[in-house]
Amino acid sequence: MDESIGLVETQYFTFAHPPHEMRLESGETLGPVTLAYETYGRLNEDKTNAILLHHALSGDAHAAGYHEGDKKPGWWDSMIGPGKAFDTNLYYVICSNVLGGCKGSTGPSSVNPKTGRPYGLDFPTITLKDMVDAQRHLIDHFGIEKLLAVAGGSMGGMQALQWLVSYPYRISASIPIATTAKHSPQQIAFNEVGRQAIMADPNWNDGNYYGGEGPAKGLSVARMIGHITYMSDVSMAEKFGRRFRDERKPFKFSADFEVEGYLRYRGDSFIKRFDANSYLYITKAMDYFDISDNKSLHEVFKGIEAKVMALAFKSDWLYPAYQSHEIVRACKLAGVDITYCEIYSTYGHDAFLLEVEEETHLIKHFLRRVYHGYEVTDEFEI
Amino acid sequence: MDESIGLVETQYFTFAHPPHEMRLESGETLGPVTLAYETYGRLNEDKTNAILLHHALSGDAHAAGYHEGDKKPGWWDSMIGPGKAFDTNLYYVICSNVLGGCKGSTGPSSVNPKTGRPYGLDFPTITLKDMVDAQRHLIDHFGIEKLLAVAGGSMGGMQALQWLVSYPYRISASIPIATTAKHSPQQIAFNEVGRQAIMADPNWNDGNYYGGEGPAKGLSVARMIGHITYMSDVSMAEKFGRRFRDERKPFKFSADFEVEGYLRYRGDSFIKRFDANSYLYITKAMDYFDISDNKSLHEVFKGIEAKVMALAFKSDWLYPAYQSHEIVRACKLAGVDITYCEIYSTYGHDAFLLEVEEETHLIKHFLRRVYHGYEVTDEFEI
Repeated sequence: MDESIGLVETQYFTFAHPPHEMRLESGETLGPVTLAYETYGRLNEDKTNAILLHHALSGDAHAAGYHEGDKKPGWWDSMIGPGKAFDTNLYYVICSNVLGGCKGSTGPSSVNPKTGRPYGLDFPTITLKDMVDAQRHLIDHFGIEKLLAVAGGSMGGMQALQWLVSYPYRISASIPIATTAKHSPQQIAFNEVGRQAIMADPNWNDGNYYGGEGPAKGLSVARMIGHITYMSDVSMAEKFGRRFRDERKPFKFSADFEVEGYLRYRGDSFIKRFDANSYLYITKAMDYFDISDNKSLHEVFKGIEAKVMALAFKSDWLYPAYQSHEIVRACKLAGVDITYCEIYSTYGHDAFLLEVEEETHLIKHFLRRVYHGYEVTDEFEI
Repeated sequence: MDESIGLVETQYFTFAHPPHEMRLESGETLGPVTLAYETYGRLNEDKTNAILLHHALSGDAHAAGYHEGDKKPGWWDSMIGPGKAFDTNLYYVICSNVLGGCKGSTGPSSVNPKTGRPYGLDFPTITLKDMVDAQRHLIDHFGIEKLLAVAGGSMGGMQALQWLVSYPYRISASIPIATTAKHSPQQIAFNEVGRQAIMADPNWNDGNYYGGEGPAKGLSVARMIGHITYMSDVSMAEKFGRRFRDERKPFKFSADFEVEGYLRYRGDSFIKRFDANSYLYITKAMDYFDISDNKSLHEVFKGIEAKVMALAFKSDWLYPAYQSHEIVRACKLAGVDITYCEIYSTYGHDAFLLEVEEETHLIKHFLRRVYHGYEVTDEFEI
């Protein structure tokens, strides 16, 4: 139980080689497309034990285990491994970096084969549907007919919902966590301000900054806004209070308070690992996301046989529980088998990364019910 | 009833002429100090009917009536005038631009008499206490011994609380609205990100931008962040939904959604009327605000004979009602006469400017109780 899966390596799959380019939701085409991905556990002979995990806005394919030389494991390591929620003794776990990303998958920082230079803003508009379509190519490549489950939090949850709608016959279950069926104007607004901060930075230069400095300050501000929305009022009060950073009398516009120092640190570390154009493209994809597509949500979910488990967190004000309630209600109306749990937490939106114990319990049992077709109690645990 | 007070003019009062400079909370001195102010109604012979109103972060002395040629009235016109909440038939209403502001009061954009150039970052750190001290000079200038009331929303409410603590014997009542006794880490965080956006703009130039372009883009981003926090999730959904701005297919990073257009408009109009350095100084003053000063809040309120009415709004998540509850609880423990009302509203923090009917009813009756010393029912309305 609770072991690490140890050393892992990111792999790459390239498809949609011209002239067989990928057709995007916008009507534009893109190719070739590379997805960076990692896998944990072993695919069984029938290829029936595969689970596809989706990362959030700033995540990547490295969900679990350690890269050679790294001190920190992947972003959801607490949930993936032998005996963990996504139990690698039982399941074959796949995670890929999204289309449009900057961690090995094709995105605006990739080289445009037509020009030999990074795409920048020549990269086409992408949507959540396009991200999921790209993942479907990867699943085809593995020869997996039907995924046991798709799962993810935040934007990862949107992908889990998009799989339900785009490829309902190719998944047995979907686990959307701390997410929404459509971005609200408040969610759009927070993303938009982040984009404005990036585009206000003269180093952004209309997206042509590769090889140069890049809009580090703008991206840092965007990330700071994000971090405020990922925490709750209560968790900030618990973590920082009104404590000053040191004994000195506060002076003007230095980071006097601990919370200011935290935000600056988060902003500064983000710019070393993320591409500003990817931030623009991916947040825009999130904002466009409305799975109901102008129909009523339960119409869209009709006929889906995959089982769904939705999770939300009480103090999450960025993706408030009422947005999960809308998903639950529509699934019920559509006759979809849905389980819902609202987990008590003070962590805000970050809870989906932190409330490991509750999530583990719920997901483990849900997956076994899907995999074995019946409830498996703890006595039968392997 | 509900008439406008008509044309008004901003006036100016200058004090603290060297060598009698104003001593600030930081220990620094400042002088001369000018406050821009407006007055509405008539001061009675005994000078017992004066009410001092305080504006919020981006407000000014022009609270009511019209300036020559203007189409829009002052920022709280709906609440100030004959028959209104702050009834100019009964009361003499004063509003001044805060110390550190940019609407006629001395602030970082004012000329430093020592250098002949705008202060910029040579302007001293100011606090809410300093703002209130400056107002006290203005009240002295009027020869007013005791104000009937002080009132304001948001940062205006902090000033109303600061008067209670700094000059308890010089007010008969305080009306803090949609405010807090101390800025929470989340409130600090939102202000800090706004400051970072300004300081990330190369045109900010360490505050030395007067005569040049100024950090318009950074200030605009700061204001956009502010506007998100002033509205509620619900009010944004009601006002904008997910509507697109026009019939065109959305394209990349233009303002596709109405909510994006609104924020950009708000950001763009703000930069024409506000000074970025004032934004830095005033938000920092708000962040430093903790009226308890490391004591327990009820200790600070002990012995206060002024009556208090606190108002909060249900959907206000920037200054949530629990912060008003803390004020109410401390007043009760300290034996202060406090009335509290939590007003139902979907407008979020903006509610204090918009929920005129409820506020009018509550404030009008509260003021009459303070002024006449007993309840005045509607039958006796003048």
